[in-house]
Amino acid sequence: MEAIVHTGRHFLQIPGPSNIPDRVLRAIDRPVMDHRGAEFAGIVKETLHEIRKIIQTSGAVVMYSASGSGAWEAAIVNTLSPGDRVLMFETGHFSRLWRQVAERFGIRVDYLPGSWHRGVVVEEIEAKLSEDKDHQYKAVLAVHNETSTGTTSDIFAIRKAMNRLGHPALLMVDAVSSLGSIEYRHDEWQVDVMIASSQKGLMMPPGLAFNAISEKAIAAGKTAKLSRSYWDWQEMLALSNNGFFPYTPSINLIYGLREALQMLLDEGLSNIFARHQRHGQATRAAVRAWGLGLVCQEPSEYSNTVTAVLVPEGHSADALRATILGKFDMSLGAGLSKLADKVFRIGHLGHFNDLMLAGTLAGVEMGLRLSGIPHTDGGVMAALDSLAPRSKPAPSVVEK
Amino acid sequence: MEAIVHTGRHFLQIPGPSNIPDRVLRAIDRPVMDHRGAEFAGIVKETLHEIRKIIQTSGAVVMYSASGSGAWEAAIVNTLSPGDRVLMFETGHFSRLWRQVAERFGIRVDYLPGSWHRGVVVEEIEAKLSEDKDHQYKAVLAVHNETSTGTTSDIFAIRKAMNRLGHPALLMVDAVSSLGSIEYRHDEWQVDVMIASSQKGLMMPPGLAFNAISEKAIAAGKTAKLSRSYWDWQEMLALSNNGFFPYTPSINLIYGLREALQMLLDEGLSNIFARHQRHGQATRAAVRAWGLGLVCQEPSEYSNTVTAVLVPEGHSADALRATILGKFDMSLGAGLSKLADKVFRIGHLGHFNDLMLAGTLAGVEMGLRLSGIPHTDGGVMAALDSLAPRSKPAPSVVEK
Amino acid sequence: MEAIVHTGRHFLQIPGPSNIPDRVLRAIDRPVMDHRGAEFAGIVKETLHEIRKIIQTSGAVVMYSASGSGAWEAAIVNTLSPGDRVLMFETGHFSRLWRQVAERFGIRVDYLPGSWHRGVVVEEIEAKLSEDKDHQYKAVLAVHNETSTGTTSDIFAIRKAMNRLGHPALLMVDAVSSLGSIEYRHDEWQVDVMIASSQKGLMMPPGLAFNAISEKAIAAGKTAKLSRSYWDWQEMLALSNNGFFPYTPSINLIYGLREALQMLLDEGLSNIFARHQRHGQATRAAVRAWGLGLVCQEPSEYSNTVTAVLVPEGHSADALRATILGKFDMSLGAGLSKLADKVFRIGHLGHFNDLMLAGTLAGVEMGLRLSGIPHTDGGVMAALDSLAPRSKPAPSVVEK
Amino acid sequence: MEAIVHTGRHFLQIPGPSNIPDRVLRAIDRPVMDHRGAEFAGIVKETLHEIRKIIQTSGAVVMYSASGSGAWEAAIVNTLSPGDRVLMFETGHFSRLWRQVAERFGIRVDYLPGSWHRGVVVEEIEAKLSEDKDHQYKAVLAVHNETSTGTTSDIFAIRKAMNRLGHPALLMVDAVSSLGSIEYRHDEWQVDVMIASSQKGLMMPPGLAFNAISEKAIAAGKTAKLSRSYWDWQEMLALSNNGFFPYTPSINLIYGLREALQMLLDEGLSNIFARHQRHGQATRAAVRAWGLGLVCQEPSEYSNTVTAVLVPEGHSADALRATILGKFDMSLGAGLSKLADKVFRIGHLGHFNDLMLAGTLAGVEMGLRLSGIPHTDGGVMAALDSLAPRSKPAPSVVEK
Repeated sequence: MEAIVHTGRHFLQIPGPSNIPDRVLRAIDRPVMDHRGAEFAGIVKETLHEIRKIIQTSGAVVMYSASGSGAWEAAIVNTLSPGDRVLMFETGHFSRLWRQVAERFGIRVDYLPGSWHRGVVVEEIEAKLSEDKDHQYKAVLAVHNETSTGTTSDIFAIRKAMNRLGHPALLMVDAVSSLGSIEYRHDEWQVDVMIASSQKGLMMPPGLAFNAISEKAIAAGKTAKLSRSYWDWQEMLALSNNGFFPYTPSINLIYGLREALQMLLDEGLSNIFARHQRHGQATRAAVRAWGLGLVCQEPSEYSNTVTAVLVPEGHSADALRATILGKFDMSLGAGLSKLADKVFRIGHLGHFNDLMLAGTLAGVEMGLRLSGIPHTDGGVMAALDSLAPRSKPAPSVVEK
Repeated sequence: MEAIVHTGRHFLQIPGPSNIPDRVLRAIDRPVMDHRGAEFAGIVKETLHEIRKIIQTSGAVVMYSASGSGAWEAAIVNTLSPGDRVLMFETGHFSRLWRQVAERFGIRVDYLPGSWHRGVVVEEIEAKLSEDKDHQYKAVLAVHNETSTGTTSDIFAIRKAMNRLGHPALLMVDAVSSLGSIEYRHDEWQVDVMIASSQKGLMMPPGLAFNAISEKAIAAGKTAKLSRSYWDWQEMLALSNNGFFPYTPSINLIYGLREALQMLLDEGLSNIFARHQRHGQATRAAVRAWGLGLVCQEPSEYSNTVTAVLVPEGHSADALRATILGKFDMSLGAGLSKLADKVFRIGHLGHFNDLMLAGTLAGVEMGLRLSGIPHTDGGVMAALDSLAPRSKPAPSVVEK
Repeated sequence: MEAIVHTGRHFLQIPGPSNIPDRVLRAIDRPVMDHRGAEFAGIVKETLHEIRKIIQTSGAVVMYSASGSGAWEAAIVNTLSPGDRVLMFETGHFSRLWRQVAERFGIRVDYLPGSWHRGVVVEEIEAKLSEDKDHQYKAVLAVHNETSTGTTSDIFAIRKAMNRLGHPALLMVDAVSSLGSIEYRHDEWQVDVMIASSQKGLMMPPGLAFNAISEKAIAAGKTAKLSRSYWDWQEMLALSNNGFFPYTPSINLIYGLREALQMLLDEGLSNIFARHQRHGQATRAAVRAWGLGLVCQEPSEYSNTVTAVLVPEGHSADALRATILGKFDMSLGAGLSKLADKVFRIGHLGHFNDLMLAGTLAGVEMGLRLSGIPHTDGGVMAALDSLAPRSKPAPSVVEK
Repeated sequence: MEAIVHTGRHFLQIPGPSNIPDRVLRAIDRPVMDHRGAEFAGIVKETLHEIRKIIQTSGAVVMYSASGSGAWEAAIVNTLSPGDRVLMFETGHFSRLWRQVAERFGIRVDYLPGSWHRGVVVEEIEAKLSEDKDHQYKAVLAVHNETSTGTTSDIFAIRKAMNRLGHPALLMVDAVSSLGSIEYRHDEWQVDVMIASSQKGLMMPPGLAFNAISEKAIAAGKTAKLSRSYWDWQEMLALSNNGFFPYTPSINLIYGLREALQMLLDEGLSNIFARHQRHGQATRAAVRAWGLGLVCQEPSEYSNTVTAVLVPEGHSADALRATILGKFDMSLGAGLSKLADKVFRIGHLGHFNDLMLAGTLAGVEMGLRLSGIPHTDGGVMAALDSLAPRSKPAPSVVEK
């Protein structure tokens, strides 16, 4: 088989940036306008109003010109003081990175070791908090959906544990790869600071980052001693109610966000979540049929936006990804840090549908063949069985 | 299974208009310019130069603001006189429509009846021409790739038959759904008038139509008595060498065409033809695996741009298409005239690749399930086997 | 002064194609869809409904994939028979071209000679019609706004003359450069066939052409003997009520037209007409201030979409245009046929505003300077005085 | 005069964001890609290579997903330690804002008071530095082009003064509204840290920010004690040589930047600077003709990207701007902080040309009329005289 010249659409199936709807790209592709004028202020106010529905909050939301990492930093510098202690659970690569951000600002992070095969073990968090009689922990930091492993954590369970103990720490949650795809209920779960960015479930290019902020977090900011300017909430919040920013915002990206939010709200949150679940299940059915392993080992914590798949020992996930990119023009996510070359990750989030998923899984299945990776044929078929069950389905492992 | 809100990309798998590359749409999306200025003239000259490579001609090409039907008409009115006789073979719906155009201009068409299950039967054409001792037939009209049935005809064989007989009729060929996808050799095959349009293998929106014209056809035009103005070749040819038109051309579509031609030439004609063959074969493998019938019954004439599939009697192809559109957001082609509701057509041409094909066939397979149409599972798998054969392939029907 | 590298936006001030709004270009820049599907049918029906408001008709409208020349041809071939006589008045280059189209189809055109300095002289038309006792004239053809001279004709006056005489000829009107810019009342003026195209007041790229058709014209078509296929109204009208076409329509251009119509209707016809009048007046004020001559010598017939300006004898209008294009990146219209090199034409139609006009006139004024063409400074200032009169205006020639 | 419905293009003549070329918007409007793939890495490397030519440096450049304010902060936190002293001169609103950023990080800023009517008074900087025998000042911070006043400062003179004294402080320069428009020679002027952003001379939407960094600044970073994560140069520099980033970059904006850089380099830096000078001069000629005052009172320091104009006492600049926006659809910059309502600012930078400038000044002149602000007619004419001098020019004030 010779090299194939690439034609047709690239399949971008990394777990973010996700595919951007044409409507959104076209909205971005509009002349820039005066960011201090009334028209733009109206767009900003509308956008901040609509995004609250996605975050399921009636509280404060700030929007940065930044990647999601900036919103991690913003969460830290707006609420904490040098030397403060916080509690985290190791869920994977992104929890590690967030920890690193905190430590760079002199925060002491108690980082409970994890296997990367499951989400936050709430019992361990609860145990540590219950030992913390004098409330040294100023915050609990958790990643809702760990993009490196395809594992979600039960944020509400963490909140309930904190409430049971009456622990006053702030609850900060990275919802970067869950928001707009997997149910996230900011107000109901009493999250104090949420971190999100534009390029995942929000179906946007990277470049915008968000914090949703509770009253308690805002209050904490009044005494927090870490220096801050760009990330400072106070100035952002003071201006954003009128549709303005302390500095020139990413005007064109905000055009796009408005369009993306409209699309999400037209679909409806419950439909969005059901769709992602449907695609997560079908993907996992394919993986099972191939006889490959999932990184996530806890069925109740399977991610519906990304599936991390183990290749058999002695085989290279990166070589597989290179073959798939070269032969089928599909980008898959790499294994990160300790999972490097052992894992490939399939993004199935955002602007996506059944046939795109079928094409994606076909690319993986053909890639497995071409790479000589031991597997059983039939993953795509299993996915079709999951998406459109036969009237008399063949016996198969039923999920959950 | 409840209604699914459509997200992700629509699968446009009708046999044209075909999917348009983003690069082409973006080229169209450019401010209009003076069509009498030097910059535009340069674009026109470049475009007419490059399209000759696709048509495989060094001869004259004219470009109309029109759909392909206009180029059918142009072929007639530029070469024939009222009452002239021409010879055609019935290959399907589009040969019928072209016949109708000719008859509207007072041309007497000898229309050899065909089954719609194969292409032009060259022997029958040859027999009719051999009887035509006094060369009453002024032209032979043939459809290269009959879009309604998924059948190609052997144009070069027709030409050879004409040459064997020394018959002076013009050879006019509809290459609408073959040009840029299936090998078409204008000069080598000595075609006198080719008809094409922008929205198939040229990966463009509809709106541009083309004639490629031999010296002999131009000469015929000098005595042809049908009235013509918009379609008149003389004025077009006189101006187009300098990059101008007798009337305001479709400037923005020409921007797009230039980009599309660049993409095609970057891929290379032989790669393009091989790719379409690869996708045609995989599609037919899927149809066979499902146990459904192909309209085209002559393997040497299978179309590599469109596959027309018969649904079992007692079932509705249109209901199947409606289900697939509703559930999986994919458009397929309908059966036309006498094939209405009996056939659905899968377009696999233009800006397309393996994973798009896999998604397409998955949509058909799931649609068959949901519609209760009797079939055997495994069409998608058969297509994957065709696209990326297993090292030890399962025994299967080998095509050709 | 050395050559300037072009930056910023090109000023496209030819009298069409006119500048296209970004909204319209962006609407065109959307994936193509199934032209036989329900979604596209809805777009077509909406578009045909809305364009009737611009044409001010409740009657039939057909839309071609073609340039405006095609709609000229359509008007002829759908209503007339070979040898029919029609009456026209020579208003300029475009009336000549339309005459030529008619003659190519065997129509005998009585072409009343005109000076190119004014519009249709209705008295002359009336005189000819009154001599035509046995109603040999099957149609009167008139150009509403003669783009080559910047002159409008009084279509309603022609109709009234025809009605006074009870002459049954059809009234056919070229509204190519007036529709959507200068008041055109199809039904009230009892026009039988209107010809228009997309690239002028409709703010679209070229590629779509239109006929608005009276019941009487449709009836005439039933006995008209000219051959027709592509341009045939019957088939178009039969299908278009359901949003379909006899052949693949220019889908992406229709996306754009829908958007353009929305913009026009949002502005409102009376506002549009007033805006064009305002810009026509200001342009003429500039021309007068420069001391140059207008081609149109009848103030009641000044065009509000295009102004044709005479350069003093011994000077080259084309050299002036080349200087302006080279130095100021502005395209102006050339003088056509007998006005070649004697005239330049300023388009001030479509997607346009006061500051674009000021920039346009500044380019002309600076071009006059650089070209050494005798003139008086102050044209731009005179235009500003027209657009935003000073509280105590300087004495100036008042128009009309 | 009644309200005018807005049509045609908006005139965005604020001093940034500036008008974005269609080519750049169209480049942004492209599907997002894998930011960890080879194709994107190539784009990043090319972009960082080309931007160095604009900055006139062969040294290190980092690119942030952020507004320019982020790059101010980055300059501070990467080089300084809490309690460090720096020296600044008050040139206007933006020097104040940068000072504020520094102070938020515990930097002690000696802020030499200025009139806002001229740039940095190098003698005062030199005097302070010469008093600083023990080199308490770790950095001198200067704004190259003060956007609030339309005044440039002589950065090279500051550098020479520092060198004369052998003062080791870092020289940090805000080139936000000069880079790509007004000559800025990073290496020759021995600037240690440059701050820039995308939405001014780089002709891009806001959302990207830049630091150009000397070896000395990088070395200073090794001992600088301010906390940093998002803005940290080390990680950025380590990855960017290979085309990667520590976090997901603004992929689509980087597509646009690549296109914008290509356009700038095609024009050529010397042509760009000459063009901006030409437009600055013409704008000031208009202001003088109107009899209005310039905020900048030092001719050698006139800005060529923005002109700040004083309205006569008793009149409101904001009311004027509102009139111009309402009647002529043009956005102008407001007076900031102490200049609020006293000043309006005309941006004449980036993707701009003579006719856009003429339209801009026509809008101001008509706005002055409609607002009843005392002025002399003829500003536009004076600008035309500046752009295209008459062969026998009328006597006029010659600039410089």
